[in-house]
Amino acid sequence: MLEKRYATKRMTGEVVPDKDIRSILKSIQLAPTSLGMQALQVFVISDKEKLKEISEKSCQQPQIVQCSHLLVFAARNEMTDADISAYMNRIATTRNIPVESLGDFRAMIESLKEYSSEDFRQWSSKQTYILLGFGLVAAASLQVDSTPMEGFDKEALDAILNLEAQGLHSVVMLALGYRDEKTDYLVNAAKVRKSIDEMFTFI
Amino acid sequence: MLEKRYATKRMTGEVVPDKDIRSILKSIQLAPTSLGMQALQVFVISDKEKLKEISEKSCQQPQIVQCSHLLVFAARNEMTDADISAYMNRIATTRNIPVESLGDFRAMIESLKEYSSEDFRQWSSKQTYILLGFGLVAAASLQVDSTPMEGFDKEALDAILNLEAQGLHSVVMLALGYRDEKTDYLVNAAKVRKSIDEMFTFI
Repeated sequence: MLEKRYATKRMTGEVVPDKDIRSILKSIQLAPTSLGMQALQVFVISDKEKLKEISEKSCQQPQIVQCSHLLVFAARNEMTDADISAYMNRIATTRNIPVESLGDFRAMIESLKEYSSEDFRQWSSKQTYILLGFGLVAAASLQVDSTPMEGFDKEALDAILNLEAQGLHSVVMLALGYRDEKTDYLVNAAKVRKSIDEMFTFI
Repeated sequence: MLEKRYATKRMTGEVVPDKDIRSILKSIQLAPTSLGMQALQVFVISDKEKLKEISEKSCQQPQIVQCSHLLVFAARNEMTDADISAYMNRIATTRNIPVESLGDFRAMIESLKEYSSEDFRQWSSKQTYILLGFGLVAAASLQVDSTPMEGFDKEALDAILNLEAQGLHSVVMLALGYRDEKTDYLVNAAKVRKSIDEMFTFI
């Protein structure tokens, strides 16, 4: 099913059933992140006015108004003691263990606070691409089309979604919907990839 | 099947069948990257001496010597005109179109050359995380266990794999193998995640 996935250029506007959206979000939720921190937030946008605003102010890619749902992957700008404590409590509660038993793990995570602001943002940004990967595969497995989009005006999108005030910055987007076979110029294009021998080095 | 996936801490050393490895690599090959550039290389390491060397010189995580195959995702340090020409030729050949018809697309990609060296490396690094996501899901679907690893001495690994001379730098690793149920302290641990309502914002 990954052979059939492609970065869909034109969508029909048809709505993806809620059960499929929930299934894609569930896969994204289950994606791993470095140290399990999940220092990110995913915006799931189906409001047509908001999608129009994003389209106008960021990149004018037609999928943004033709999709059913637009996922915006945003990463945290910094990590606070409150974030770390919330994470430790989540582990303790989920695994039914005393939070005090997590001291070594907490110390490891605290070392992230030594990152510069820029390094932290790079670290948290990268994690969102794992979620993007999980979302892409989940959508393909449900025959939902999708378009990953990285080239957009991040400051404009941050302003539209009020991300700065939430301690977040936008990283990458994924439009979910259905290909418009009549107008999508890529619908029958062969997938272009390096060969296995070019792309992988076996040692 | 994603519920059963976890970052495996101890592996048995059992070898993953070649057909499963090929299937995981195929998924990784099919992962999208920004502009389709695939500005990266994946090292597939099963040589025991090499794995021991990586373990000793980088992070001593036991999975590195207990796994069947270690994937090292490396990203390009820069993009040359030769890379761009090779990509244009690959598109033209795959889609049976004249390479001259790709002028606008080539111009868009050439703009990447304006990135600073650091910005380019950040851009290419992020793409490897999409591949990591595809690899993680593919392994889980085949009941192959895996461990994504980000915390290792990147300079040491670059030296072991001679990456600088290949215009690459290491970004993230994925060990593939089988969980050792007797010694893996995480084998029965409940998965810790933010809830759907915490992690997603619906607009």
